[in-house]
Amino acid sequence: MTTFAFDVETAIEPDGPGRWLTTISSDWNINTNPNGGYAATPLLRAMAAEAEGHPDPVSLTTHYLRPALGDQDATIITEVARRGRRTSTVRGSMHQDGKPRLESVATFADLSAIPDGSEIDGSSLEIPPPDLAPVEQCVNRLELRQGVVLALASRVEIRIDPRYAEPGVAGEAVTAGWIRLLDGRAPDSLTLPLFADSFPPSVFGLVGQTGWVPTIELTVHVRRRPAPGWIRARFVTREIAGATLIEDGTLWDETDRIVARSRQLAMAVD
Amino acid sequence: MTTFAFDVETAIEPDGPGRWLTTISSDWNINTNPNGGYAATPLLRAMAAEAEGHPDPVSLTTHYLRPALGDQDATIITEVARRGRRTSTVRGSMHQDGKPRLESVATFADLSAIPDGSEIDGSSLEIPPPDLAPVEQCVNRLELRQGVVLALASRVEIRIDPRYAEPGVAGEAVTAGWIRLLDGRAPDSLTLPLFADSFPPSVFGLVGQTGWVPTIELTVHVRRRPAPGWIRARFVTREIAGATLIEDGTLWDETDRIVARSRQLAMAVD
Repeated sequence: MTTFAFDVETAIEPDGPGRWLTTISSDWNINTNPNGGYAATPLLRAMAAEAEGHPDPVSLTTHYLRPALGDQDATIITEVARRGRRTSTVRGSMHQDGKPRLESVATFADLSAIPDGSEIDGSSLEIPPPDLAPVEQCVNRLELRQGVVLALASRVEIRIDPRYAEPGVAGEAVTAGWIRLLDGRAPDSLTLPLFADSFPPSVFGLVGQTGWVPTIELTVHVRRRPAPGWIRARFVTREIAGATLIEDGTLWDETDRIVARSRQLAMAVD
Repeated sequence: MTTFAFDVETAIEPDGPGRWLTTISSDWNINTNPNGGYAATPLLRAMAAEAEGHPDPVSLTTHYLRPALGDQDATIITEVARRGRRTSTVRGSMHQDGKPRLESVATFADLSAIPDGSEIDGSSLEIPPPDLAPVEQCVNRLELRQGVVLALASRVEIRIDPRYAEPGVAGEAVTAGWIRLLDGRAPDSLTLPLFADSFPPSVFGLVGQTGWVPTIELTVHVRRRPAPGWIRARFVTREIAGATLIEDGTLWDETDRIVARSRQLAMAVD
Protein backbone atom coordinates (compact mmCIF):
# COMPACT_ATOMS: atom_id res chain seq x y z
CA MET A 1 0.00 0.00 0.00
CA THR A 2 1.36 3.37 -1.03
CA THR A 3 1.18 6.09 1.56
CA PHE A 4 0.94 9.69 0.50
CA ALA A 5 2.13 12.77 2.41
CA PHE A 6 -1.34 14.34 2.31
CA ASP A 7 -2.88 11.37 4.13
CA VAL A 8 -0.04 10.89 6.62
CA GLU A 9 0.29 14.58 7.48
CA THR A 10 -3.44 15.19 7.96
CA ALA A 11 -4.17 11.92 9.79
CA ILE A 12 -6.33 12.02 12.90
CA GLU A 13 -6.85 9.58 15.75
CA PRO A 14 -9.88 9.43 18.05
CA ASP A 15 -9.36 10.56 21.64
CA GLY A 16 -12.80 9.97 23.15
CA PRO A 17 -16.25 11.15 22.02
CA GLY A 18 -15.98 14.29 19.90
CA ARG A 19 -12.20 14.55 20.51
CA TRP A 20 -9.40 13.87 18.07
CA LEU A 21 -5.64 14.27 17.97
CA THR A 22 -3.45 15.29 15.05
CA THR A 23 -0.02 16.76 14.35
CA ILE A 24 0.34 19.79 12.10
CA SER A 25 3.38 19.51 9.82
CA SER A 26 5.54 22.46 8.83
CA ASP A 27 6.11 21.01 5.36
CA TRP A 28 2.98 22.79 4.06
CA ASN A 29 4.10 26.23 5.28
CA ILE A 30 3.90 29.56 3.50
CA ASN A 31 6.65 31.52 5.22
CA THR A 32 6.39 30.52 8.89
CA ASN A 33 2.68 29.58 8.91
CA PRO A 34 1.04 26.33 7.82
CA ASN A 35 -1.16 26.91 4.75
CA GLY A 36 -4.74 27.54 5.91
CA GLY A 37 -6.28 24.95 3.59
CA TYR A 38 -3.79 22.36 4.83
CA ALA A 39 -4.35 23.22 8.51
CA ALA A 40 -8.12 22.86 8.02
CA THR A 41 -7.79 19.33 6.59
CA PRO A 42 -7.35 17.29 9.81
CA LEU A 43 -10.32 19.22 11.23
CA LEU A 44 -12.28 18.44 8.07
CA ARG A 45 -11.36 14.74 8.40
CA ALA A 46 -12.65 14.66 11.98
CA MET A 47 -15.88 16.42 11.03
CA ALA A 48 -16.36 14.06 8.06
CA ALA A 49 -15.89 11.08 10.38
CA GLU A 50 -18.80 12.39 12.47
CA ALA A 51 -20.98 12.82 9.34
CA GLU A 52 -21.46 9.06 9.04
CA GLY A 53 -22.24 8.03 5.47
CA HIS A 54 -21.86 11.58 4.13
CA PRO A 55 -18.18 11.89 3.14
CA ASP A 56 -18.27 14.99 0.89
CA PRO A 57 -18.17 18.55 2.32
CA VAL A 58 -20.76 20.33 0.16
CA SER A 59 -20.29 23.45 2.31
CA LEU A 60 -17.27 24.04 4.56
CA THR A 61 -16.58 27.33 6.33
CA THR A 62 -13.46 27.84 8.43
CA HIS A 63 -12.68 30.92 10.49
CA TYR A 64 -8.98 31.46 11.19
CA LEU A 65 -8.72 32.73 14.76
CA ARG A 66 -4.96 32.40 15.01
CA PRO A 67 -2.32 30.87 12.71
CA ALA A 68 -1.82 27.13 13.11
CA LEU A 69 1.58 26.03 14.50
CA GLY A 70 3.78 23.75 12.40
CA ASP A 71 5.42 20.69 13.95
CA GLN A 72 3.07 20.78 16.91
CA ASP A 73 0.30 18.50 18.12
CA ALA A 74 -3.28 19.70 17.95
CA THR A 75 -6.57 18.77 19.59
CA ILE A 76 -9.78 18.74 17.55
CA ILE A 77 -13.25 19.03 19.10
CA THR A 78 -16.29 18.01 17.01
CA GLU A 79 -20.02 18.24 17.64
CA VAL A 80 -22.80 16.92 15.41
CA ALA A 81 -25.50 19.53 14.81
CA ARG A 82 -27.71 17.18 12.79
CA ARG A 83 -27.39 13.79 11.13
CA GLY A 84 -30.00 13.57 8.38
CA ARG A 85 -30.90 11.24 5.57
CA ARG A 86 -29.39 13.33 2.77
CA THR A 87 -26.97 15.60 4.65
CA SER A 88 -25.23 15.93 8.01
CA THR A 89 -24.01 19.15 9.62
CA VAL A 90 -21.05 19.16 12.00
CA ARG A 91 -19.13 21.88 13.77
CA GLY A 92 -15.55 21.61 14.91
CA SER A 93 -12.56 23.49 16.25
CA MET A 94 -8.82 22.92 16.26
CA HIS A 95 -6.66 23.89 19.25
CA GLN A 96 -2.91 24.13 19.78
CA ASP A 97 -0.91 25.35 22.72
CA GLY A 98 -4.13 25.74 24.73
CA LYS A 99 -5.67 28.17 22.26
CA PRO A 100 -8.39 27.78 19.60
CA ARG A 101 -6.92 28.27 16.12
CA LEU A 102 -9.62 27.23 13.62
CA GLU A 103 -13.41 27.22 13.98
CA SER A 104 -15.41 25.35 11.31
CA VAL A 105 -18.93 24.38 10.36
CA ALA A 106 -19.70 22.04 7.47
CA THR A 107 -22.56 20.23 5.81
CA PHE A 108 -21.70 16.87 4.28
CA ALA A 109 -23.49 14.75 1.67
CA ASP A 110 -22.76 11.72 -0.50
CA LEU A 111 -21.93 13.22 -3.89
CA SER A 112 -21.89 9.79 -5.53
CA ALA A 113 -25.62 9.57 -4.81
CA ILE A 114 -26.88 12.74 -6.47
CA PRO A 115 -27.70 13.36 -10.14
CA ASP A 116 -24.71 14.35 -12.26
CA GLY A 117 -26.34 17.01 -14.47
CA SER A 118 -26.14 20.78 -14.44
CA GLU A 119 -29.64 21.56 -15.62
CA ILE A 120 -32.76 23.12 -14.23
CA ASP A 121 -35.99 22.67 -16.19
CA GLY A 122 -33.94 21.88 -19.31
CA SER A 123 -31.62 24.92 -19.04
CA SER A 124 -27.97 24.08 -18.39
CA LEU A 125 -25.88 26.35 -16.17
CA GLU A 126 -22.12 25.85 -16.10
CA ILE A 127 -18.99 27.97 -15.85
CA PRO A 128 -16.64 26.78 -18.60
CA PRO A 129 -13.01 26.23 -17.56
CA PRO A 130 -10.57 29.04 -18.40
CA ASP A 131 -8.37 28.81 -21.46
CA LEU A 132 -5.03 28.08 -19.76
CA ALA A 133 -1.58 27.52 -21.20
CA PRO A 134 -0.57 23.83 -21.08
CA VAL A 135 0.99 22.74 -17.78
CA GLU A 136 4.50 22.56 -19.28
CA GLN A 137 4.30 26.23 -20.34
CA CYS A 138 3.09 27.38 -16.93
CA VAL A 139 5.35 28.77 -14.22
CA ASN A 140 5.99 26.89 -10.99
CA ARG A 141 4.78 28.97 -8.04
CA LEU A 142 8.27 28.54 -6.61
CA GLU A 143 9.65 30.69 -9.43
CA LEU A 144 7.29 33.62 -8.87
CA ARG A 145 8.93 36.76 -7.52
CA GLN A 146 6.51 36.73 -4.65
CA GLY A 147 8.89 37.07 -1.74
CA VAL A 148 7.68 34.06 0.20
CA VAL A 149 9.38 30.91 1.45
CA LEU A 150 7.20 28.11 0.13
CA ALA A 151 7.65 24.80 1.97
CA LEU A 152 4.18 24.07 0.56
CA ALA A 153 5.86 23.46 -2.81
CA SER A 154 7.41 20.30 -1.36
CA ARG A 155 3.91 18.85 -1.18
CA VAL A 156 1.80 20.64 -3.80
CA GLU A 157 2.72 21.37 -7.43
CA ILE A 158 1.26 24.73 -8.44
CA ARG A 159 1.70 25.95 -12.02
CA ILE A 160 0.65 29.51 -12.84
CA ASP A 161 -0.48 30.57 -16.30
CA PRO A 162 2.24 32.89 -17.73
CA ARG A 163 -0.27 35.76 -17.94
CA TYR A 164 -0.38 35.85 -14.14
CA ALA A 165 3.21 34.95 -13.36
CA GLU A 166 4.73 38.43 -13.25
CA PRO A 167 3.78 40.67 -10.33
CA GLY A 168 1.45 43.45 -11.40
CA VAL A 169 1.56 42.63 -15.11
CA ALA A 170 -1.87 41.02 -15.58
CA GLY A 171 -3.53 44.35 -14.80
CA GLU A 172 -6.38 42.57 -13.08
CA ALA A 173 -6.67 40.82 -9.74
CA VAL A 174 -6.72 37.33 -11.22
CA THR A 175 -4.59 34.23 -10.93
CA ALA A 176 -5.11 30.91 -12.67
CA GLY A 177 -3.27 27.68 -13.26
CA TRP A 178 -2.94 23.99 -12.51
CA ILE A 179 -2.53 22.17 -9.21
CA ARG A 180 -1.94 18.62 -7.96
CA LEU A 181 -0.30 16.81 -5.07
CA LEU A 182 3.39 16.32 -5.84
CA ASP A 183 3.59 12.63 -4.88
CA GLY A 184 0.79 11.53 -7.20
CA ARG A 185 -1.95 11.26 -4.60
CA ALA A 186 -5.21 11.69 -6.59
CA PRO A 187 -7.56 14.61 -5.84
CA ASP A 188 -10.73 13.96 -3.88
CA SER A 189 -13.27 15.93 -1.85
CA LEU A 190 -10.79 16.35 1.01
CA THR A 191 -7.99 17.85 -1.10
CA LEU A 192 -10.13 20.57 -2.70
CA PRO A 193 -10.15 22.98 0.29
CA LEU A 194 -6.33 22.81 0.27
CA PHE A 195 -6.23 23.47 -3.48
CA ALA A 196 -8.61 26.42 -2.99
CA ASP A 197 -6.06 28.06 -0.68
CA SER A 198 -2.73 27.24 -2.38
CA PHE A 199 -2.43 29.75 -5.23
CA PRO A 200 -0.75 33.14 -4.87
CA PRO A 201 -3.22 35.86 -3.86
CA SER A 202 -5.06 37.07 -6.96
CA VAL A 203 -4.10 40.69 -6.12
CA PHE A 204 -0.55 39.60 -7.11
CA GLY A 205 -1.64 39.98 -10.75
CA LEU A 206 -2.78 43.54 -10.10
CA VAL A 207 -0.23 45.09 -7.80
CA GLY A 208 2.49 42.50 -7.38
CA GLN A 209 1.83 42.58 -3.67
CA THR A 210 4.50 40.42 -2.13
CA GLY A 211 3.24 40.45 1.45
CA TRP A 212 1.06 37.96 3.20
CA VAL A 213 -2.71 38.17 2.60
CA PRO A 214 -3.97 36.36 5.72
CA THR A 215 -7.29 34.55 5.48
CA ILE A 216 -9.96 35.58 7.98
CA GLU A 217 -12.53 33.07 6.72
CA LEU A 218 -12.62 30.54 3.89
CA THR A 219 -15.76 28.86 2.52
CA VAL A 220 -15.42 25.98 0.06
CA HIS A 221 -18.34 24.27 -1.68
CA VAL A 222 -17.38 20.89 -3.13
CA ARG A 223 -19.63 20.47 -6.18
CA ARG A 224 -18.53 17.07 -7.55
CA ARG A 225 -15.91 14.43 -6.77
CA PRO A 226 -12.91 15.20 -9.01
CA ALA A 227 -11.57 12.84 -11.69
CA PRO A 228 -7.89 11.80 -11.34
CA GLY A 229 -5.28 14.20 -12.70
CA TRP A 230 -4.64 17.93 -12.61
CA ILE A 231 -7.11 20.40 -11.17
CA ARG A 232 -7.47 23.73 -12.97
CA ALA A 233 -8.31 26.77 -10.87
CA ARG A 234 -9.03 30.46 -11.33
CA PHE A 235 -9.23 33.07 -8.57
CA VAL A 236 -10.41 36.67 -8.79
CA THR A 237 -10.65 39.60 -6.39
CA ARG A 238 -13.39 41.97 -7.56
CA GLU A 239 -13.56 44.40 -4.66
CA ILE A 240 -11.72 45.69 -1.65
CA ALA A 241 -13.54 47.39 1.22
CA GLY A 242 -11.40 49.12 3.77
CA ALA A 243 -8.94 46.63 5.19
CA THR A 244 -10.32 43.47 3.61
CA LEU A 245 -10.86 41.81 0.23
CA ILE A 246 -13.00 38.94 -1.01
CA GLU A 247 -11.45 36.40 -3.37
CA ASP A 248 -13.63 33.97 -5.35
CA GLY A 249 -12.27 30.73 -6.78
CA THR A 250 -13.50 28.05 -9.16
CA LEU A 251 -11.86 24.63 -9.59
CA TRP A 252 -12.34 22.19 -12.50
CA ASP A 253 -11.12 18.63 -13.02
CA GLU A 254 -9.65 17.10 -16.19
CA THR A 255 -13.15 16.32 -17.50
CA ASP A 256 -13.87 20.11 -17.54
CA ARG A 257 -16.48 19.86 -14.77
CA ILE A 258 -16.57 22.23 -11.83
CA VAL A 259 -15.50 20.35 -8.71
CA ALA A 260 -15.41 23.18 -6.16
CA ARG A 261 -16.00 26.86 -5.63
CA SER A 262 -14.45 28.99 -2.93
CA ARG A 263 -14.79 32.42 -1.38
CA GLN A 264 -12.45 33.88 1.17
CA LEU A 265 -12.38 37.03 3.27
CA ALA A 266 -8.78 38.15 3.70
CA MET A 267 -6.83 41.07 5.11
CA ALA A 268 -5.71 43.45 2.36
CA VAL A 269 -3.95 45.82 4.73
CA ASP A 270 -2.28 44.35 7.76
CA MET B 1 -39.40 56.35 20.47
CA THR B 2 -40.51 54.66 17.28
CA THR B 3 -40.46 50.90 17.30
CA PHE B 4 -39.99 49.02 14.08
CA ALA B 5 -41.23 45.53 13.21
CA PHE B 6 -37.71 44.34 12.39
CA ASP B 7 -36.46 45.17 15.88
CA VAL B 8 -39.54 43.90 17.74
CA GLU B 9 -39.80 40.65 15.78
CA THR B 10 -36.11 39.75 16.04
CA ALA B 11 -35.68 40.82 19.69
CA ILE B 12 -33.83 38.51 22.06
CA GLU B 13 -33.65 38.29 25.84
CA PRO B 14 -30.85 36.70 27.86
CA ASP B 15 -31.66 33.42 29.62
CA GLY B 16 -28.41 32.67 31.41
CA PRO B 17 -24.81 32.47 30.13
CA GLY B 18 -24.79 31.67 26.41
CA ARG B 19 -28.58 31.22 26.31
CA TRP B 20 -31.18 33.50 24.75
CA LEU B 21 -34.90 33.41 24.07
CA THR B 22 -36.78 34.77 21.08
CA THR B 23 -40.07 34.32 19.24
CA ILE B 24 -40.11 33.70 15.49
CA SER B 25 -42.92 35.60 13.78
CA SER B 26 -44.87 34.21 10.81
CA ASP B 27 -45.16 37.68 9.28
CA TRP B 28 -41.87 37.18 7.40
CA ASN B 29 -42.95 33.89 5.81
CA ILE B 30 -42.48 32.72 2.26
CA ASN B 31 -45.30 30.23 1.88
CA THR B 32 -45.41 28.39 5.23
CA ASN B 33 -41.76 28.92 6.25
CA PRO B 34 -40.14 31.96 7.84
CA ASN B 35 -37.65 33.57 5.45
CA GLY B 36 -34.18 32.18 6.17
CA GLY B 37 -32.52 35.58 6.44
CA TYR B 38 -35.20 36.71 8.89
CA ALA B 39 -34.97 33.53 10.98
CA ALA B 40 -31.19 33.97 11.23
CA THR B 41 -31.51 37.52 12.60
CA PRO B 42 -32.33 36.80 16.29
CA LEU B 43 -29.44 34.32 16.25
CA LEU B 44 -27.22 36.99 14.70
CA ARG B 45 -28.30 39.46 17.41
CA ALA B 46 -27.35 37.00 20.16
CA MET B 47 -23.99 36.27 18.56
CA ALA B 48 -23.32 40.01 18.09
CA ALA B 49 -24.11 40.58 21.78
CA GLU B 50 -21.36 38.07 22.63
CA ALA B 51 -18.90 39.83 20.30
CA GLU B 52 -18.51 42.73 22.72
CA GLY B 53 -17.46 45.92 20.94
CA HIS B 54 -17.59 44.30 17.50
CA PRO B 55 -21.13 44.90 16.22
CA ASP B 56 -20.72 44.22 12.49
CA PRO B 57 -20.81 40.66 11.05
CA VAL B 58 -17.98 40.77 8.52
CA SER B 59 -18.54 37.05 7.84
CA LEU B 60 -21.72 35.19 8.80
CA THR B 61 -22.44 31.60 7.73
CA THR B 62 -25.72 29.91 8.60
CA HIS B 63 -26.58 26.27 7.88
CA TYR B 64 -30.31 25.54 7.67
CA LEU B 65 -30.83 22.16 9.32
CA ARG B 66 -34.63 22.37 9.38
CA PRO B 67 -37.12 25.16 8.55
CA ALA B 68 -37.79 27.60 11.37
CA LEU B 69 -41.33 27.58 12.80
CA GLY B 70 -43.40 30.78 12.66
CA ASP B 71 -45.29 31.97 15.72
CA GLN B 72 -43.21 29.77 18.02
CA ASP B 73 -40.66 30.47 20.71
CA ALA B 74 -37.03 29.59 20.09
CA THR B 75 -33.95 29.01 22.21
CA ILE B 76 -30.56 30.31 21.07
CA ILE B 77 -27.24 28.92 22.29
CA THR B 78 -24.07 30.96 21.80
CA GLU B 79 -20.41 30.22 22.41
CA VAL B 80 -17.49 32.62 21.98
CA ALA B 81 -14.66 31.05 20.00
CA ARG B 82 -12.37 34.06 20.39
CA ARG B 83 -12.62 37.67 21.51
CA GLY B 84 -9.80 39.60 19.91
CA ARG B 85 -8.72 43.19 19.61
CA ARG B 86 -9.90 43.67 16.02
CA THR B 87 -12.40 40.84 15.58
CA SER B 88 -14.42 38.35 17.59
CA THR B 89 -15.67 34.95 16.41
CA VAL B 90 -18.82 33.42 17.85
CA ARG B 91 -20.80 30.32 17.05
CA GLY B 92 -24.48 29.86 17.73
CA SER B 93 -27.51 27.69 17.12
CA MET B 94 -31.27 28.22 17.16
CA HIS B 95 -33.63 25.54 18.45
CA GLN B 96 -37.42 25.15 18.33
CA ASP B 97 -39.64 22.30 19.41
CA GLY B 98 -36.60 20.50 20.86
CA LYS B 99 -34.73 20.41 17.57
CA PRO B 100 -31.81 22.42 16.19
CA ARG B 101 -32.93 24.54 13.22
CA LEU B 102 -30.05 26.90 12.39
CA GLU B 103 -26.32 26.52 13.00
CA SER B 104 -24.14 29.64 12.55
CA VAL B 105 -20.60 30.87 12.87
CA ALA B 106 -19.64 34.52 12.48
CA THR B 107 -16.71 36.87 12.79
CA PHE B 108 -17.55 40.38 13.93
CA ALA B 109 -15.61 43.65 13.69
CA ASP B 110 -16.24 47.35 14.17
CA LEU B 111 -16.71 48.65 10.61
CA SER B 112 -16.70 52.25 11.81
CA ALA B 113 -13.08 51.76 12.81
CA ILE B 114 -11.56 50.56 9.53
CA PRO B 115 -10.38 52.61 6.57
CA ASP B 116 -13.13 53.48 4.09
CA GLY B 117 -11.23 53.04 0.82
CA SER B 118 -11.28 50.28 -1.77
CA GLU B 119 -7.65 50.42 -2.82
CA ILE B 120 -4.62 48.21 -2.61
CA ASP B 121 -1.25 49.77 -3.41
CA GLY B 122 -3.04 52.57 -5.28
CA SER B 123 -5.23 50.29 -7.41
CA SER B 124 -8.94 50.56 -6.72
CA LEU B 125 -11.15 47.48 -6.89
CA GLU B 126 -14.91 47.93 -6.85
CA ILE B 127 -17.98 46.34 -8.42
CA PRO B 128 -20.11 49.21 -9.80
CA PRO B 129 -23.83 49.03 -9.00
CA PRO B 130 -26.08 47.66 -11.77
CA ASP B 131 -28.00 50.03 -14.01
CA LEU B 132 -31.49 49.50 -12.61
CA ALA B 133 -34.82 51.03 -13.56
CA PRO B 134 -35.96 53.65 -11.02
CA VAL B 135 -37.85 52.22 -8.04
CA GLU B 136 -41.21 53.51 -9.31
CA GLN B 137 -40.78 51.59 -12.59
CA CYS B 138 -39.84 48.34 -10.82
CA VAL B 139 -42.30 45.55 -10.04
CA ASN B 140 -43.30 44.70 -6.49
CA ARG B 141 -42.27 41.12 -5.71
CA LEU B 142 -45.92 40.57 -4.70
CA GLU B 143 -46.95 41.03 -8.33
CA LEU B 144 -44.54 38.44 -9.74
CA ARG B 145 -46.22 35.31 -11.07
CA GLN B 146 -44.06 33.26 -8.77
CA GLY B 147 -46.69 31.07 -7.15
CA VAL B 148 -45.75 31.87 -3.57
CA VAL B 149 -47.67 33.37 -0.68
CA LEU B 150 -45.50 36.21 0.51
CA ALA B 151 -46.23 37.35 4.06
CA LEU B 152 -42.67 38.71 3.89
CA ALA B 153 -44.06 41.55 1.74
CA SER B 154 -45.86 42.89 4.82
CA ARG B 155 -42.44 43.68 6.27
CA VAL B 156 -40.02 44.12 3.37
CA GLU B 157 -40.58 46.12 0.18
CA ILE B 158 -38.91 44.34 -2.75
CA ARG B 159 -38.97 45.96 -6.18
CA ILE B 160 -37.74 43.90 -9.13
CA ASP B 161 -36.26 45.48 -12.26
CA PRO B 162 -38.75 44.90 -15.12
CA ARG B 163 -36.12 42.87 -17.02
CA TYR B 164 -36.36 40.17 -14.36
CA ALA B 165 -40.05 40.41 -13.50
CA GLU B 166 -41.44 37.87 -15.97
CA PRO B 167 -40.68 34.19 -15.35
CA GLY B 168 -38.16 32.83 -17.81
CA VAL B 169 -37.97 36.01 -19.91
CA ALA B 170 -34.56 37.37 -18.81
CA GLY B 171 -32.85 34.35 -20.39
CA GLU B 172 -30.23 34.36 -17.66
CA ALA B 173 -30.32 33.30 -14.03
CA VAL B 174 -30.26 36.85 -12.68
CA THR B 175 -32.51 38.98 -10.54
CA ALA B 176 -31.97 42.56 -9.45
CA GLY B 177 -33.86 45.36 -7.81
CA TRP B 178 -34.39 47.54 -4.77
CA ILE B 179 -35.16 46.58 -1.17
CA ARG B 180 -35.99 48.31 2.12
CA LEU B 181 -37.97 47.69 5.28
CA LEU B 182 -41.58 48.71 4.72
CA ASP B 183 -42.01 50.72 7.92
CA GLY B 184 -39.06 53.02 7.31
CA ARG B 185 -36.56 51.31 9.61
CA ALA B 186 -33.12 52.26 8.20
CA PRO B 187 -30.78 49.54 6.93
CA ASP B 188 -27.82 48.53 9.05
CA SER B 189 -25.39 45.62 9.42
CA LEU B 190 -28.11 43.42 10.95
CA THR B 191 -30.65 43.91 8.14
CA LEU B 192 -28.27 42.96 5.31
CA PRO B 193 -28.45 39.15 5.80
CA LEU B 194 -32.25 39.44 5.55
CA PHE B 195 -31.97 41.56 2.40
CA ALA B 196 -29.54 39.01 0.92
CA ASP B 197 -32.22 36.32 1.21
CA SER B 198 -35.42 38.21 0.26
CA PHE B 199 -35.35 38.36 -3.55
CA PRO B 200 -36.93 35.73 -5.79
CA PRO B 201 -34.48 32.96 -6.70
CA SER B 202 -32.33 34.16 -9.60
CA VAL B 203 -33.22 31.00 -11.56
CA PHE B 204 -36.68 32.61 -11.85
CA GLY B 205 -35.28 34.81 -14.64
CA LEU B 206 -34.07 31.73 -16.53
CA VAL B 207 -36.76 29.13 -16.18
CA GLY B 208 -39.61 30.80 -14.34
CA GLN B 209 -39.31 28.16 -11.67
CA THR B 210 -42.16 28.76 -9.32
CA GLY B 211 -41.24 26.21 -6.66
CA TRP B 212 -39.30 26.73 -3.48
CA VAL B 213 -35.50 26.85 -3.70
CA PRO B 214 -34.60 25.97 -0.12
CA THR B 215 -31.35 27.32 1.29
CA ILE B 216 -28.88 24.75 2.61
CA GLU B 217 -26.31 27.34 3.67
CA LEU B 218 -26.03 31.13 3.39
CA THR B 219 -22.86 33.16 3.85
CA VAL B 220 -23.06 36.96 4.05
CA HIS B 221 -20.08 39.28 4.25
CA VAL B 222 -21.00 42.77 5.46
CA ARG B 223 -18.51 45.09 3.76
CA ARG B 224 -19.61 48.51 5.03
CA ARG B 225 -22.38 50.01 7.16
CA PRO B 226 -25.13 51.10 4.75
CA ALA B 227 -26.29 54.69 4.33
CA PRO B 228 -30.02 55.34 4.94
CA GLY B 229 -32.40 54.66 2.07
CA TRP B 230 -32.92 51.92 -0.48
CA ILE B 231 -30.50 49.04 -0.93
CA ARG B 232 -29.85 47.86 -4.49
CA ALA B 233 -29.11 44.18 -5.01
CA ARG B 234 -28.20 41.81 -7.81
CA PHE B 235 -28.15 38.01 -7.62
CA VAL B 236 -26.84 35.50 -10.15
CA THR B 237 -26.72 31.73 -10.41
CA ARG B 238 -23.80 30.71 -12.62
CA GLU B 239 -23.81 26.95 -12.21
CA ILE B 240 -25.87 24.01 -11.10
CA ALA B 241 -24.26 20.73 -10.07
CA GLY B 242 -26.59 17.80 -9.62
CA ALA B 243 -29.24 18.72 -7.11
CA THR B 244 -27.83 22.06 -5.93
CA LEU B 245 -27.05 25.56 -7.17
CA ILE B 246 -24.91 28.41 -5.89
CA GLU B 247 -26.32 31.94 -5.98
CA ASP B 248 -24.06 34.96 -5.52
CA GLY B 249 -25.38 38.34 -4.43
CA THR B 250 -24.04 41.88 -4.19
CA LEU B 251 -25.75 44.71 -2.28
CA TRP B 252 -25.10 48.46 -2.65
CA ASP B 253 -26.41 51.44 -0.68
CA GLU B 254 -27.62 54.79 -2.03
CA THR B 255 -24.05 56.12 -2.09
CA ASP B 256 -23.21 53.38 -4.68
CA ARG B 257 -20.89 51.54 -2.28
CA ILE B 258 -20.97 47.81 -1.80
CA VAL B 259 -22.38 47.07 1.64
CA ALA B 260 -22.60 43.26 1.52
CA ARG B 261 -21.93 40.22 -0.60
CA SER B 262 -23.66 36.88 -0.26
CA ARG B 263 -23.33 33.31 -1.49
CA GLN B 264 -25.84 30.58 -0.85
CA LEU B 265 -25.99 26.87 -1.55
CA ALA B 266 -29.57 25.88 -2.34
CA MET B 267 -31.52 22.87 -3.53
CA ALA B 268 -32.30 23.12 -7.25
CA VAL B 269 -34.17 19.83 -7.35
CA ASP B 270 -36.19 18.88 -4.34
